[in-house]
Amino acid sequence: MNISALLTSAGINITICVVLLSLYSILRKQPSLVNVYFGQRLAQVQSKRHDLFCFDRLVPSASWILKACETSEEEIFSAGGLDAVVFLRMLVFSIRIFSIAAIICIFLVLPLNYFGQEMQHKQIPSESLDVFTIGNVKLGSRWLWAHCLALYVISFCACILLYTEYKSITKKRLAYVTGSPLNPSQFTVLVRAIPWSSGESYSDSVRKFFSNYYASSYLSHQMVYQSGTVQKLMNDAEKIYRMLKSAPMEQHCGLSLMRCGLCGGTAQPFKVLSSEPESANGRSDYADSDLREKECAAALIFFRTRYAALVASQALQSPNPMLWVTDLAPEPKDIYWTNLCVSYRLLWIRRTATLLASVLFMIFYLVPVTIVQSIAHLDKLQKIFPFLRGISERKFLIQLITGYLPSVILMLFLYIVPPLMMLFSTLEGSISRSGRKRSACIKILYFLIWNVFFAQIFTGTAIDRVGKISSAKDIPNQLARAVPSAATFFMTYVLTSGWASLSCELVQPFALLCHLFERFVLRNKDDPSCGTYTFPYHTEVSRVLLFVLLGFTFSILAPLMLPFLLVYFLLAYLVYRNQILNVYITKYQTGGLYWPVVHKTTIFSLVLTQIIALGVFGLKESTVASSFTIPLIICTLLFNEYCRRRFQPVFTSFPAQVLIEMDWQDQQCGRMEEIHQQLRSAYYQFTSISSKQCKAAHPSHCESEDGDGVQDLEDKAPGEKSTIVQETQVERLHLEIEELNVK
Amino acid sequence: MNISALLTSAGINITICVVLLSLYSILRKQPSLVNVYFGQRLAQVQSKRHDLFCFDRLVPSASWILKACETSEEEIFSAGGLDAVVFLRMLVFSIRIFSIAAIICIFLVLPLNYFGQEMQHKQIPSESLDVFTIGNVKLGSRWLWAHCLALYVISFCACILLYTEYKSITKKRLAYVTGSPLNPSQFTVLVRAIPWSSGESYSDSVRKFFSNYYASSYLSHQMVYQSGTVQKLMNDAEKIYRMLKSAPMEQHCGLSLMRCGLCGGTAQPFKVLSSEPESANGRSDYADSDLREKECAAALIFFRTRYAALVASQALQSPNPMLWVTDLAPEPKDIYWTNLCVSYRLLWIRRTATLLASVLFMIFYLVPVTIVQSIAHLDKLQKIFPFLRGISERKFLIQLITGYLPSVILMLFLYIVPPLMMLFSTLEGSISRSGRKRSACIKILYFLIWNVFFAQIFTGTAIDRVGKISSAKDIPNQLARAVPSAATFFMTYVLTSGWASLSCELVQPFALLCHLFERFVLRNKDDPSCGTYTFPYHTEVSRVLLFVLLGFTFSILAPLMLPFLLVYFLLAYLVYRNQILNVYITKYQTGGLYWPVVHKTTIFSLVLTQIIALGVFGLKESTVASSFTIPLIICTLLFNEYCRRRFQPVFTSFPAQVLIEMDWQDQQCGRMEEIHQQLRSAYYQFTSISSKQCKAAHPSHCESEDGDGVQDLEDKAPGEKSTIVQETQVERLHLEIEELNVK
Repeated sequence: MNISALLTSAGINITICVVLLSLYSILRKQPSLVNVYFGQRLAQVQSKRHDLFCFDRLVPSASWILKACETSEEEIFSAGGLDAVVFLRMLVFSIRIFSIAAIICIFLVLPLNYFGQEMQHKQIPSESLDVFTIGNVKLGSRWLWAHCLALYVISFCACILLYTEYKSITKKRLAYVTGSPLNPSQFTVLVRAIPWSSGESYSDSVRKFFSNYYASSYLSHQMVYQSGTVQKLMNDAEKIYRMLKSAPMEQHCGLSLMRCGLCGGTAQPFKVLSSEPESANGRSDYADSDLREKECAAALIFFRTRYAALVASQALQSPNPMLWVTDLAPEPKDIYWTNLCVSYRLLWIRRTATLLASVLFMIFYLVPVTIVQSIAHLDKLQKIFPFLRGISERKFLIQLITGYLPSVILMLFLYIVPPLMMLFSTLEGSISRSGRKRSACIKILYFLIWNVFFAQIFTGTAIDRVGKISSAKDIPNQLARAVPSAATFFMTYVLTSGWASLSCELVQPFALLCHLFERFVLRNKDDPSCGTYTFPYHTEVSRVLLFVLLGFTFSILAPLMLPFLLVYFLLAYLVYRNQILNVYITKYQTGGLYWPVVHKTTIFSLVLTQIIALGVFGLKESTVASSFTIPLIICTLLFNEYCRRRFQPVFTSFPAQVLIEMDWQDQQCGRMEEIHQQLRSAYYQFTSISSKQCKAAHPSHCESEDGDGVQDLEDKAPGEKSTIVQETQVERLHLEIEELNVK
Repeated sequence: MNISALLTSAGINITICVVLLSLYSILRKQPSLVNVYFGQRLAQVQSKRHDLFCFDRLVPSASWILKACETSEEEIFSAGGLDAVVFLRMLVFSIRIFSIAAIICIFLVLPLNYFGQEMQHKQIPSESLDVFTIGNVKLGSRWLWAHCLALYVISFCACILLYTEYKSITKKRLAYVTGSPLNPSQFTVLVRAIPWSSGESYSDSVRKFFSNYYASSYLSHQMVYQSGTVQKLMNDAEKIYRMLKSAPMEQHCGLSLMRCGLCGGTAQPFKVLSSEPESANGRSDYADSDLREKECAAALIFFRTRYAALVASQALQSPNPMLWVTDLAPEPKDIYWTNLCVSYRLLWIRRTATLLASVLFMIFYLVPVTIVQSIAHLDKLQKIFPFLRGISERKFLIQLITGYLPSVILMLFLYIVPPLMMLFSTLEGSISRSGRKRSACIKILYFLIWNVFFAQIFTGTAIDRVGKISSAKDIPNQLARAVPSAATFFMTYVLTSGWASLSCELVQPFALLCHLFERFVLRNKDDPSCGTYTFPYHTEVSRVLLFVLLGFTFSILAPLMLPFLLVYFLLAYLVYRNQILNVYITKYQTGGLYWPVVHKTTIFSLVLTQIIALGVFGLKESTVASSFTIPLIICTLLFNEYCRRRFQPVFTSFPAQVLIEMDWQDQQCGRMEEIHQQLRSAYYQFTSISSKQCKAAHPSHCESEDGDGVQDLEDKAPGEKSTIVQETQVERLHLEIEELNVK
């Protein structure tokens, strides 16, 4: 590939980006598409729709860029939670470190590579891109010192930036913990593997155990029920109830307040089920004994103080470590009820099996892809399907099929990966939605690093030589041979996969098509059944981290990549800010747990860069430079170890000091009793479908009652109720209705 | 090597063993050697020496074997603690599994190997040993099914035995925890990295922090002092004091009781120092300000209940994880005071450095050894030292030097390993002596597996072929080629290193020589300054586990090794029982923490065996047998994972349920106050030298006062005081003296 080809490719991609961005700036002004582009805003405020047409709606504008830039971190935090802040900090870190790297490498390393006298120069437009890589530097050249120096400066700056980011995010996480005093999950412990005793129910065992050993701090508990059967029974009952009531309900259609009250009313008996059996009063349709049979060996235990819950979650409860397994409970909206019922004894088998499955999938992913790709070539297809022979006479079609079919197949296979990894994480038995997403994120990250980075480097360039790695000592040399020659491929990868995917992210083609299909084909005007999504951290974090890896590894070897990457990161910063503010809703979050993943991956990228540089210096016969790289590797690893000890524990546990002080404050304010009251109704395993159906019929009226007007397409699972604040709003509504009735 | 050579070698070793055992049975009857062979008994009871000579003392007898067999597990537990029981259970497990393996392999596998038709048979005495290995089975033979079956049976039996052992040892550990109600370490938490504040001392910070956040459970605390300086000051002061007092003391030499009282009396002011500063009364020679400057950023915190201590030890205390780091404290005799003062910020650097150093030592250990060995050959020595040329004319001397020098050098290098690994573990910053020994044990184990097993297999037999491992897939094949041919070497290794080392262990040549040297050269008749040792678990556990590895890997490949191994394990069982009962004293123990190490290593051996078998079956072109081995490997790994989850947590933490119940019992008995009183005097950082010197002058009188009449040569460190029980004995003695004075 030469410079003119690269510039052409860049030009095409820039054009695509500009067109898509303009398209977005027009589409977002269309009131009918407000569901697609302002899901987050919709969830917050009830929008007032005005379908007035004006010319301004068809003019592309850059106002969204300005808005995205102006937004403060507090606004991001309130819209997307701590995870969104962490995600944007990752992008800020990337922009900073690659700005530094670009300045150093383009002004110091690039000229040295270009005037390196190893290859012959042509005219600049048809100059090969290899001339700009380290491959052009002479054997044993003194100039390799400059490369080594650049590596030192980049590693040093990266470590400083990583340290400051880790420190500030740790502070933010602590502020997040202390800033949510009404968080019921801090008082709640999830206990699993409750032992079965023939005489008593699980609920009795739990009460006995905790009121015995945690007498002073145990408040109450709530059993988890087998969701499949109970949910089905309840839905059936509700359907029949609704059928019976449907005729009279239609008559009152105008009185929206009354109907919503009714929805809440019908939901009442089913809500009670999920709280403690003794509080299940006569209104319940199911006998206690029926429910008891549906009890899982898992329960949520509520404690009087946060510290007591923390202590109970950390201790080994029983002499048999497979019984009474405790964990801090996830937040009510975050909890993944289906997995709570999984027998704890099966959990480790599930975990091992999914680990094995995902490792095998990662390793052997390329095998079926290459096989399918090789079959997809026309000459082989003709052998299987003889009727295709007619095509072979038309040259254009041949080019189209042989040129595009393999890459289309690769793309299709790549689209399978995120849902599959999400499935693996679900099967693994994650108890929270956010934990499942984080686990999927790590899996996709491994997948991308292995199947995009290493597979491309090894299969694309040096498969014949790499086949014979005779010892561990040879790995740097093999990498050093393979990596620089893969530079041109990854440069176009940044252009196509990076830039183009950002534009697609902005336009949201899938949601747009889904919306248009509903509107014009199904003629369903109002209902946003496509729903709004939560932010896909699992795909986006891993994609950005792959680009970080590319940036580090190619920084001193092929510095020409850095400007393209820098543009990608700047664009990503704007686009994701906009998306977090406008499109995605935040139902659950990990509380900044993505940062340790980012940190570790960045350190991995740094060390890999240094190992490759070690190999390159060795190949170029500069022993001094290569021996100076070894202490750098050791220092980077030591830095990582220090950060792990200094910051990591805050991300795995809560500091006792902080929780105790929060407990004191609540006790002094006299807020504790109120919190205890709210705890009892914080976790609902089952939501009745009635409220959903009511909403489906008249969404605009009911959305104010239930905050769950948004729907999480990835997370179709037994529903969850809104937060405490929204519950109280509903209660207030009930009171208002009652007051009206009295009058 | 042929059969007759093997039998000769076995005969020689058997003779050596018999001679040494007989020598031992005579030596142990000599009253003058009672210090060498009955250190444990001496520490328990004050022996009455009778130097009456009788003929019976010179007749070898097997009475010790009978005694070793008759002892019950309770006696072993009371003599050697839980660790000794675990060690012997490891031997029992080995005897059981290798009995099964021997029966199966000798009656099923060995005949198949022998009649395998791959090699030519000779007359039985000169038959090569290779005829008995799997190498003699024909390619693609159907008989390999029998090998596969044997492998399945051995793996299955090993897993069942491992499971039952793990289960019973877990029970024993729980019983050990509940069975020591007066153990002060259960109430104590070690806190390190106390933050420095300019206004107040460390002690004040500790009091403020714990009385603030742990108000209900905090009892008191005890600072740790920089041992180097204080110890030196105290020793100096004591020396002067003793010089001043020495003249009058000599006059009272007859009144042993009075003098012992005096020893105790002088020790008093120095004991007080180590407790809380406010309790240091006027008798102290050092001002508080002096002591404050010597305070380390570490302290022992005493809690009111066991559960409170457990909770405090597990929680992350402060938002900065590098401050207020808590751990459960080791037992008073187990604590390693010098390491407590190491700055916590340096600790991770130390750990990383020692890890790196020990890994490098392990990998490159063979390099200097081979270099020295190659230099040790006579022809090269002659070049360096020309005066040696005269020797080359005498054939006998040449044979001696070239034959023995390399192996002597190897042995010398091997003797360095345990002390070096112990040094590494000390530098690592272990806070307890038992933890240090366990860490050294793991290091030595890795060392032996790598440098004896793998190094011998690869360098001894197939270095040229193994140099080119092209992929991970090839490793089983390479191992399969190398392992069977190493069988003869390891058979002789079992004979020499196994059997002979056991006889040496029994006779204790080092302690014997040390004793004889003192007695006849130094003319020092009574003082056992060579002292008695604690059991060297770090060397013995790792050695036995190496033989377990050998047993598994060679069981189906070269079954002829199993009888020799079985004899080793039986002999080891007798010898170590005897040694634990008679020789070694138990000052500290890990509480069974060696079993997880044993379990993991056994699983590793099993999986390695299966991988090698996989390779062998592959080489012998029996694809069915080799594909049947893969599920076996997976099942073994799953079994390991299950055991890890089922039993491991009990070995890393204490179950809350158990500790809470212990607390209840003590509260109901009203024993809590008593325990709290004893806690204040349980941990002594400094022992005064006066009692030691008093003892040195008149050991027979003072030993009853202070249980520390024994000395741990490996663990020369600031002393530790005896247990609570012994303390109370001393107090009783004081009272008796006072009563005498009053009368």
